[in-house]
Amino acid sequence: MSELDLETPAPVVDLDRLDRNLERWQRRCDELGFASRPHVKTHKCTVIALRQVELGAAGVTCQTLGEAEAMADAGIGDVLLPGNVVGARKLERLSRLLGRARVTVAVDDERVAEGLADVGDGLTILVECDTGHGRSGVQTPQRAAGLAKAIASTDGLRFGGFLTYPAPPGARAFLADAVDRCGLEVETVSAGGTPAMWDAGELRPVVTEYRAGTYAFHDRATVAAGAATLDDVALTVCATVVSRPAPGRAIVDAGSKALSSDRCAEPGHGLVLEAPSSRLVRLDEEHGYVELADGDELDVGRQVRIVPNHACVVANLFSSLALVRDGALAGAWAVDARGR
Amino acid sequence: MSELDLETPAPVVDLDRLDRNLERWQRRCDELGFASRPHVKTHKCTVIALRQVELGAAGVTCQTLGEAEAMADAGIGDVLLPGNVVGARKLERLSRLLGRARVTVAVDDERVAEGLADVGDGLTILVECDTGHGRSGVQTPQRAAGLAKAIASTDGLRFGGFLTYPAPPGARAFLADAVDRCGLEVETVSAGGTPAMWDAGELRPVVTEYRAGTYAFHDRATVAAGAATLDDVALTVCATVVSRPAPGRAIVDAGSKALSSDRCAEPGHGLVLEAPSSRLVRLDEEHGYVELADGDELDVGRQVRIVPNHACVVANLFSSLALVRDGALAGAWAVDARGR
Repeated sequence: MSELDLETPAPVVDLDRLDRNLERWQRRCDELGFASRPHVKTHKCTVIALRQVELGAAGVTCQTLGEAEAMADAGIGDVLLPGNVVGARKLERLSRLLGRARVTVAVDDERVAEGLADVGDGLTILVECDTGHGRSGVQTPQRAAGLAKAIASTDGLRFGGFLTYPAPPGARAFLADAVDRCGLEVETVSAGGTPAMWDAGELRPVVTEYRAGTYAFHDRATVAAGAATLDDVALTVCATVVSRPAPGRAIVDAGSKALSSDRCAEPGHGLVLEAPSSRLVRLDEEHGYVELADGDELDVGRQVRIVPNHACVVANLFSSLALVRDGALAGAWAVDARGR
Repeated sequence: MSELDLETPAPVVDLDRLDRNLERWQRRCDELGFASRPHVKTHKCTVIALRQVELGAAGVTCQTLGEAEAMADAGIGDVLLPGNVVGARKLERLSRLLGRARVTVAVDDERVAEGLADVGDGLTILVECDTGHGRSGVQTPQRAAGLAKAIASTDGLRFGGFLTYPAPPGARAFLADAVDRCGLEVETVSAGGTPAMWDAGELRPVVTEYRAGTYAFHDRATVAAGAATLDDVALTVCATVVSRPAPGRAIVDAGSKALSSDRCAEPGHGLVLEAPSSRLVRLDEEHGYVELADGDELDVGRQVRIVPNHACVVANLFSSLALVRDGALAGAWAVDARGR
């Protein structure tokens, strides 16, 4: 891999791979008849979100109000917040956002739904269902249907359908049961998650919309899950070998403030592409410890590219993404939905 | 703990505790005869660094050139970069920094030292020693002394002494041996680390300078190490309970993008002060999973304060720090040395 004239550590996006990832998934959604609603938490970058919409996405998914505001600022007119919005300040922001975009939010609690009734006209509400992940969401189809009916009968709220994340075995049956039981018109049944995205067709005809985020970049986790190969990985962290203190040990200038401490099913903290048999065994904040395999040689000053365990936390650690095309630098994009 | 009119998640600094932490450690350094050189990586905030200098710090320690530039911009005239500076772009930045501050860098490699010879006049070089941590640094006192002599005899370089991190048993003997063997005038022998800081007196008379970072805020890790009590913790993450999907489970809006995935000797991802027997068992990016202990009750909408496992990665995830004094909001400080 050619060295880039780049100060390290730096996140680097391969534009050809990014384009390929975005196009391939949109094509699959079109084939399956899914509305695609990419999750922008992965890149927090309006340029990429606009490209996703241009390719055919129905809108975007935003994990925070700051992301949603950045998307609206960039002209994206349809945003989903897939979880409870709680607190007076957040409700105020949500109200302001409603004037600028079609907004859908998911809820799992009647009290939270009631809090949304005064936010403003045009807000659509989905019922969040816990179909096995064990995070938020109502626990049974009965409760999902009950909450749906409560929303539909509350002035100021517009019921839109159901939402889950991810969609483990049983999710389709859960969601179908909720749809049947509620007896309401259901516009949207939304599922998501990159690791299982190529199997999403099995969720038809119940599910109508799919939310994927990591697919834009991929990472060690989605490669381990079989959703991509290493050749699809569009985001790497460029680092420099800064110390070779002992035989078998190299220190790079990418630590937990560049890669995060997120783990995945593979050992270590990332894959060093120039030393694939070696292991990134430990991170301090600005140091990565590489335990060198026999034959892997990393001299001081050598630039390396690291595939992170989890792409979505990497972009969030930087203010901009360096771009490469055909191995050469091709500008930078701001991570402009970060820190808002 | 009173609720703050604050959008969550948000890092909150208790100003009285911060002041107490800074003053107490500076007083101890003064008693021990150590130069105190606080590590700014913990807060990345020039206001706090200026306070540290005002209290008597000899200068600051910066893990990145961006931090060092921010400190120089704020008028801090003495900065240490405690590791190899490698790469043409970084050397250019270092050269520009030299015009604005007294700069010391540590090296563990003759080739890296040679790269510094053309950076400019006035750069002081310390030899980084690995006294047991197993990261970077020369591995023996013999090599430390040899590198010291090589630096002292290179035109354009000024030898200043030795540096290590942390300072485990044996560090003092290692450093004393290096000082003896080099036969040079040694201005500075620098050690560091918050967990063992209250035992730093044992490093005298060899060690002359101490670098602590986390002591400004403390966290679950330094409390677990016995360097502080929970009443000393000056940085918490304010979060809101956003979902109570099942009995025994509460979801807060602080996940790995607010707390990081860093672990410590205590179980879980942080301590929820309002539910101290409960466990923050898992983080997604914007969600924390609290497994509630019997008797701990966290209703939707409740604001909580979480002691993070590792303070130094938390400030880096935000653009500003909210301030409280006597339980009330008292403004905000920018994390102005972040992302540069």
